[in-house]
Amino acid sequence: MRTNVPSDLEISRSARLLPVAEVAAAAGIPEDALELFGRYKAKVDPALLPGNRVPGRVVLVTAMSPTPAGEGKSTVTVGLADALQRAGKNVFIALREPSMGPVLGMKGGATGGGYSQVVPMEDINLHFTGDFHAITSANNALAALVDNSIFQGNPLGLDPRRITIKRVLDMNDRALREIVIGLGGPAQGVPRQDGFDITVASEVMAVFCLARDLTDLTERLARITVGYTYDRRPVTVADLGAEGAMTLLLRDALKPNLVQTLAGTPALVHGGPFANIAHGCNSVIATRTARRLADIVVTEAGFGADLGAEKYLDIKSRVADVAPDAVVVVATVRALKMHGGLPREQLAEENLPALEAGTANLRRHLENIRRFGINPVVAVNRFATDTEAELHWLREWCATEGVGAAVADVWANGGGGPGGDELAATVLEALGRPVDFRFLYPDELPVAEKIRTVARDIYGAADVEFALPARRRLDEIAARGLEHLPVCMAKTQYSFSDDATALGAPSGFTIHVRDLSIKTGAGFVVALTGAVMTMPGLPKAPAALNMKVAADGTPSGLI
Amino acid sequence: MRTNVPSDLEISRSARLLPVAEVAAAAGIPEDALELFGRYKAKVDPALLPGNRVPGRVVLVTAMSPTPAGEGKSTVTVGLADALQRAGKNVFIALREPSMGPVLGMKGGATGGGYSQVVPMEDINLHFTGDFHAITSANNALAALVDNSIFQGNPLGLDPRRITIKRVLDMNDRALREIVIGLGGPAQGVPRQDGFDITVASEVMAVFCLARDLTDLTERLARITVGYTYDRRPVTVADLGAEGAMTLLLRDALKPNLVQTLAGTPALVHGGPFANIAHGCNSVIATRTARRLADIVVTEAGFGADLGAEKYLDIKSRVADVAPDAVVVVATVRALKMHGGLPREQLAEENLPALEAGTANLRRHLENIRRFGINPVVAVNRFATDTEAELHWLREWCATEGVGAAVADVWANGGGGPGGDELAATVLEALGRPVDFRFLYPDELPVAEKIRTVARDIYGAADVEFALPARRRLDEIAARGLEHLPVCMAKTQYSFSDDATALGAPSGFTIHVRDLSIKTGAGFVVALTGAVMTMPGLPKAPAALNMKVAADGTPSGLI
Repeated sequence: MRTNVPSDLEISRSARLLPVAEVAAAAGIPEDALELFGRYKAKVDPALLPGNRVPGRVVLVTAMSPTPAGEGKSTVTVGLADALQRAGKNVFIALREPSMGPVLGMKGGATGGGYSQVVPMEDINLHFTGDFHAITSANNALAALVDNSIFQGNPLGLDPRRITIKRVLDMNDRALREIVIGLGGPAQGVPRQDGFDITVASEVMAVFCLARDLTDLTERLARITVGYTYDRRPVTVADLGAEGAMTLLLRDALKPNLVQTLAGTPALVHGGPFANIAHGCNSVIATRTARRLADIVVTEAGFGADLGAEKYLDIKSRVADVAPDAVVVVATVRALKMHGGLPREQLAEENLPALEAGTANLRRHLENIRRFGINPVVAVNRFATDTEAELHWLREWCATEGVGAAVADVWANGGGGPGGDELAATVLEALGRPVDFRFLYPDELPVAEKIRTVARDIYGAADVEFALPARRRLDEIAARGLEHLPVCMAKTQYSFSDDATALGAPSGFTIHVRDLSIKTGAGFVVALTGAVMTMPGLPKAPAALNMKVAADGTPSGLI
Repeated sequence: MRTNVPSDLEISRSARLLPVAEVAAAAGIPEDALELFGRYKAKVDPALLPGNRVPGRVVLVTAMSPTPAGEGKSTVTVGLADALQRAGKNVFIALREPSMGPVLGMKGGATGGGYSQVVPMEDINLHFTGDFHAITSANNALAALVDNSIFQGNPLGLDPRRITIKRVLDMNDRALREIVIGLGGPAQGVPRQDGFDITVASEVMAVFCLARDLTDLTERLARITVGYTYDRRPVTVADLGAEGAMTLLLRDALKPNLVQTLAGTPALVHGGPFANIAHGCNSVIATRTARRLADIVVTEAGFGADLGAEKYLDIKSRVADVAPDAVVVVATVRALKMHGGLPREQLAEENLPALEAGTANLRRHLENIRRFGINPVVAVNRFATDTEAELHWLREWCATEGVGAAVADVWANGGGGPGGDELAATVLEALGRPVDFRFLYPDELPVAEKIRTVARDIYGAADVEFALPARRRLDEIAARGLEHLPVCMAKTQYSFSDDATALGAPSGFTIHVRDLSIKTGAGFVVALTGAVMTMPGLPKAPAALNMKVAADGTPSGLI
């Protein structure tokens, strides 16, 4: 494989993109359904699409437990779709929008990498079409209305100590994690302890991504719990009357964004909730719109399959008809060796015993996917340091496990080239097999039992311990008649357990649920295990300090 | 005149707009300089415009001291431009973008009104093309980098008590005026007292609106003072190294936005700084771009002529070649009667003595404009309650004063109709007269003397008193070699004095400068007189609570 690959930004900027109007026309999107944002981005109005074709089949790309070595899930998603298009298939990508905050911090963007990217990467990674700004605005309008209601005589009787929504910014801003607002005396506000989250951690983001249409969006927004009264009755957005203004602020953003890959494959990039305190996949509207336009939709779930895929399958697929027809689990030789106990510094060396030990992690993810009635396939995302012996051994292992496997060489060579052909063929074969999709648990299972089911069946836990705050929330869930809600586990992505250092496939452990967060708008109960960071900080040397714009507008320093 | 005029939103939504690409083509904008944002909004890249025509002449619309009765400056601006277009002139409008926060509060939008609007009003009044979100992001990225620098060992030695930039939101959010951030212990931040401003009050907004191009933008951003060290040395954005990332976040926003009026007149709506702590007019780039495209550019300055026009003439016109060739002072019979002592409840009744008394206010504004070498004209913005006798008297008065005058009936009938013909003719006549433009004061006058000059010559003050904090800042200005900067007065818009209740034309008063704010990026010194609100609050019954979106996307409740 090639190793002298330019930076993602250089590749994106040197690419010759098709005008997005041409991409749309080729994808069967009528001109009047397209709202251009410059030459290479557009919004698509689902209401103006033709409605009479068989919905496309869904390929969900997920991964083994991530490691700092990187697994390249978005890169494989893009590369696979490009390869399917190259194989003559009518294909669409549905991806999350990146959050800008981490881009200014240290994380690369979330648009794939190398020669498997959605482009223009600098647009998509920064403001894009303004969706996250709209979500920030809708959320913060709600927060301002809540504090204004408390200020203006507090007619709803809100307890300032029990406001459950926070203001948000799409920024890594540690100093806003814990703040006191409303200082300055009677004319300035009512003091209370508060904090900002990053926009992607907001319930408004989760609602946005689960809404089926504008009406559903308004109804979900109306159901968001904003806080409690002094006598602990929940107060919702509807009590405040803010759902109309919030919908108005989100109206245009709700239309999915059309872009293309470097190989010209159409992609809807829309919505981007956290994968721990939220469900971690692109909007329901984008996935459904893509299904109306293509025979195959390649989409992605956040983090490893224990978090992202489980939520895609148990939360998103419960809301809308988006259950996958095939699931691809991305693995890398490097990540497997790390789960097999090899320290990061030794990952570049061939080590078959560590590779073998690491398959314990991958195996459990594969077993988990089968619990949903789908036999997954493995995509080995190739890195330059992988040896032929390692790749050969891994293929053999997959065959023994009874799963299809393919080495994807799409980062260095692009899915538009032959690097994704094997993966495309493997996925097409998987799409030919019957699927008997089922949820992990039924709606009617009580929330505590749902959490136990996920912990036992997906994580391999022996037990679940609910701390006192969590037990109180369970009582509230029963009292409010919310036991039917699915659960959304907030757990470290690095381990099946709630201990980030327990790599491989730990078992017999206890999952500690310290608290629950009842998301009545999004329609799930978040189970919080361990500390969950909902407002990241900037590192010592933020990426932002290397960014520049030349006089002619050429950017540099984006990673 | 018509009195049964529908709401601004109803008029805007029932209008048949031209595709913005057609508006652009008619205005001489080449297709490759246009970046569409849907069908009716676009950004224009000034770098791709033809560059070989005589720059258009500038008509500045300003007003007498505003009253709660309303003066309709934007409405007259739009109506005048429509009437000039109707008269066969090649005309462009340059206007500020509205701030979204007040739209959710109680203020109507800032897109004109009645049949003299720029449209689509609901887009322009909400997210528009995302410029304000970009400015919010650039400002807040800077703030996060500042607090991160303090957190990561504070290599610049920033004094957490002396940070001069604030975070911003485009929201009316009283509870964020005075806050404490960085709580939670060593891992969360360094505690300090802080606050949020509304986005339009930020120095980044002022910089954005005064920048001539991307390079100038970067240089101005780099010069912004973010705070002081413990030994009181100023620390700038350049010391932090954040100007590149900020420019990157503002790069696309810096291109002016093209929309149209109800009559199809092209308008560049771009940037919107406060008119008290900043200079209160649309971007330099928009005005200059409009001059490259049209023979006449109609633009507007915020508040009354003592604030908005003075700043347009002394600040904006010093930065770029945008000095006006004609100035229109908008007056209303109602506002004149209020300045003449009539209470608000009696404004609907004919009252010639009050009208006459109120002309003292208008007269001083007219005299002030003449100090800049321009003989202004008066536009009487007609209201339904104005009587023929009042309008007749006012015309006569203007004739006696030696200024051209016209009654504009553009709100009810639109500038596309005959309601603006008289005003257009009056303005064209004014454009035929010679102008001997001069600044009120030279660059080399010390800042304190500049403030005295504005207070004496424009406001009619007898004296200026500098409080101790202001005197300390004057010392700092001398020490940092910043005496060449122009001044930007932050004063109530309701009176020539710093007492909002002193209507008419007070004189002999003292202006109290309580503090100065040195805006090294924007390039002016703000003189703060009285309390200046930089983060508005929401009223008891916020407009947001009446806003709705129908299932088909139709909005309602915007005012």
